[in-house]
Amino acid sequence: MSQQQFLEALLQTLGADTVLVGDAVQARYHTDWSGTPPVAPLALVRPRSTEDVSAALRLCHAHRIPVVPQGGLTGLAGGAVPVQASVAISMERMSAIEDISARSAVMTVQAGATLQAVQEAAVQAGLVFGVDLGARGSCQIGGNVATNAGGNGVLQHGMMREQVLGLEVVLADGSVLPMLRPMIKNNTGYDLKQFFIGSEGTLGVITRVLLRLRPQPQAKATALVAMPSFDAALAVLQHMQQRFGNSVAAFELMWDSFVQASVQWQQLQAPFAENHPFLALIDVDGKDEASLRDAVEEALGAAMEGGDVLDAVIAQSHTQAKALWKLREAPAELNNNMHPPINFDVSLPQADIGRFAQAIQAAFDARWPGHFTLFFGHVGDGNLHVSTDGATVNGECEAVEEMLYQVVGEFHGSVSAEHGIGLHKKPYLALSRTPQELAAMRAIKAAWDPLGILNPGKVL
Amino acid sequence: MSQQQFLEALLQTLGADTVLVGDAVQARYHTDWSGTPPVAPLALVRPRSTEDVSAALRLCHAHRIPVVPQGGLTGLAGGAVPVQASVAISMERMSAIEDISARSAVMTVQAGATLQAVQEAAVQAGLVFGVDLGARGSCQIGGNVATNAGGNGVLQHGMMREQVLGLEVVLADGSVLPMLRPMIKNNTGYDLKQFFIGSEGTLGVITRVLLRLRPQPQAKATALVAMPSFDAALAVLQHMQQRFGNSVAAFELMWDSFVQASVQWQQLQAPFAENHPFLALIDVDGKDEASLRDAVEEALGAAMEGGDVLDAVIAQSHTQAKALWKLREAPAELNNNMHPPINFDVSLPQADIGRFAQAIQAAFDARWPGHFTLFFGHVGDGNLHVSTDGATVNGECEAVEEMLYQVVGEFHGSVSAEHGIGLHKKPYLALSRTPQELAAMRAIKAAWDPLGILNPGKVL
Repeated sequence: MSQQQFLEALLQTLGADTVLVGDAVQARYHTDWSGTPPVAPLALVRPRSTEDVSAALRLCHAHRIPVVPQGGLTGLAGGAVPVQASVAISMERMSAIEDISARSAVMTVQAGATLQAVQEAAVQAGLVFGVDLGARGSCQIGGNVATNAGGNGVLQHGMMREQVLGLEVVLADGSVLPMLRPMIKNNTGYDLKQFFIGSEGTLGVITRVLLRLRPQPQAKATALVAMPSFDAALAVLQHMQQRFGNSVAAFELMWDSFVQASVQWQQLQAPFAENHPFLALIDVDGKDEASLRDAVEEALGAAMEGGDVLDAVIAQSHTQAKALWKLREAPAELNNNMHPPINFDVSLPQADIGRFAQAIQAAFDARWPGHFTLFFGHVGDGNLHVSTDGATVNGECEAVEEMLYQVVGEFHGSVSAEHGIGLHKKPYLALSRTPQELAAMRAIKAAWDPLGILNPGKVL
Repeated sequence: MSQQQFLEALLQTLGADTVLVGDAVQARYHTDWSGTPPVAPLALVRPRSTEDVSAALRLCHAHRIPVVPQGGLTGLAGGAVPVQASVAISMERMSAIEDISARSAVMTVQAGATLQAVQEAAVQAGLVFGVDLGARGSCQIGGNVATNAGGNGVLQHGMMREQVLGLEVVLADGSVLPMLRPMIKNNTGYDLKQFFIGSEGTLGVITRVLLRLRPQPQAKATALVAMPSFDAALAVLQHMQQRFGNSVAAFELMWDSFVQASVQWQQLQAPFAENHPFLALIDVDGKDEASLRDAVEEALGAAMEGGDVLDAVIAQSHTQAKALWKLREAPAELNNNMHPPINFDVSLPQADIGRFAQAIQAAFDARWPGHFTLFFGHVGDGNLHVSTDGATVNGECEAVEEMLYQVVGEFHGSVSAEHGIGLHKKPYLALSRTPQELAAMRAIKAAWDPLGILNPGKVL
């Protein structure tokens, strides 16, 4: 059967409302936020039901046509960019919040619901959803699951994996796995849903997600804390966790250069009279605002006496808390201020992050004396982000990547903490995985997608 | 090559110190705590290193000899009982706590370390390990991983899966997967370690575990609380979680018949002057004993005014807390007081547990009017345990199982919350998994163990 005949069969099966072909597929489906060169798919399928997805996959499987699942297209690793002669499946029309039980603290949603819609529905039910990240208004929950998204809530609630109680997934041949039982504990054979979380669309298309919700904190305190060194920052984190346990909801560390850039790019007021080597944004949950602020102040006071804290400000209102958090939002300005930014999302043993950043700084200093590099991240989870201005390293992006990833390997770190492998990090995957591990991954891929039609060329 | 020749090759490769053959294998390796009829293996291998395990598997793989991994043999589903003509691999000699970092809150242990040894090492480092269960002195951490153990800490810290940062696993052909990077976030391809957690020795032999540790709570309060109904109990749980968040460390619910039996079997003092329909043991973590007790008292007082709590006692000392928890230890007496006990470990949507127990009670009442059945469990996790005295149902154990599991199916529950499938629950697996899910599991098994030598006949 020719390509033309396949497309006609697809149209006939799913209808012209669901299938767009060739030039009818808008350019926004050709790439994602990663800046990967766009590729037009043969066709775009916009299913309204799991049955639509299953029918599309059955046809593609029969004709060995590659399938690229698409969520909100906010990925930074190129995982959702179409490959040549493929069918893209956009989940955007399957966006319903199907069911929510405040009593059982669970929610069933279609994969195309945005993260923000999920968050808002949880809050309306008197609960919260445990994952939050900058792209919340555009990214979809199915994509969050497929990439095992991280973000700002990991310290308290874990990654996306920890929020997923169940998944409905369509396999390469169109068969449906309805793994949607709302149980926290279910030791009945292999926990299949785990296999799809973080598989970046290479093992199946996620159509429904059963999410676990969390209690809504009654009060929240936000502090911006200055520290003399990375080790002091780690000591403060441990001090706060000792004092407040799992109620420490965020601990975002910013190196001074990041703080300076953020103030300048966003035209903010400098948070302290003088510059400090490290600033951390700390959120703590509690029972009531006033007593919680007092407790946070007392805890930070103790750390100040010990020398780990140099200065601190505690937000006295939601508005002030938001203003403090603004400092952390510089990444949204990277594309405007770096030419281009070379971005990294690495994971390291928590205690080694300070030494790692020093090693990178020294290595870059030696080769590109005038380079401009920022360090920041979810240090509570061992996750560091690094951004280097391409213009300050003579545009040698690949050399920057190779140098940084080599140091990641030396520190036994991971080349992707939360963004995934997609297309962009494939060359460096072997730095974080042994040949035996890669062979075991390929065996899984071959078992569930023997024809290799699902998101080919991604991850493996 | 004959069986005799295989055994000679095994002896020659690993030595007589490591390999015991035939009658030299003591009876305690022939079965586990499940009471499954004993089976003598051809040989018992007691490796001292991952290399030993790898060498044993290479030989067994080459000769298609079944391999049965054994931990502490405390399983309740028969998963570690040898099969005919198999080699049992006991991990008991690989019991070292290899490395512990208080700063990074991680620990690397060999798979044969007992749960208790892990707990004690964590406490010595000023931290705690998140999983606890009755068999702690005998069960091994590798077995805890292989069965995704639950227990008393799930409400706060999740199941074993949530404690595992890394695994070293030997595959069926003897190749080693060294997935031991100490990162919380690591999105580099499929998260292979997830596949082995809960696979009950059918996909690989776990040799090392990298565990995540948790901060040690500074204070703990224990309360025993009486409630008029299951719905009231659920309301109290949610009230406490609203008030104390993730610091609610345990919520163990006991139906009145369980409480009565526990008092009688263990010759305890009745906790309250009158009997109440439900009692819950509640543990809450906090900063200091006195203020925490006050806060718990205040929270329970509010619930009492609302009618959800009938009576409550808050332990004033560790000794009193231990005495209250004694009430929950009746399961250790089941074998002495039921003839025999028919035990269940089911999982249900949390809100449905009360109705489920009523449905079981009614169904059993109709068929066996004098039956004696106890209900208790980790209700905070949706996990209910049921024990029926076989003598009171005319010894019709299978009929009891069929009747109960059918109701589990009707409630869309799970036939195994935390004990696993092993041998015993295989007939009922299809009640919790669809044919498509079972096919997907078999594909994984075939991909990683194509000859089917690993723990054959278990789970699938």
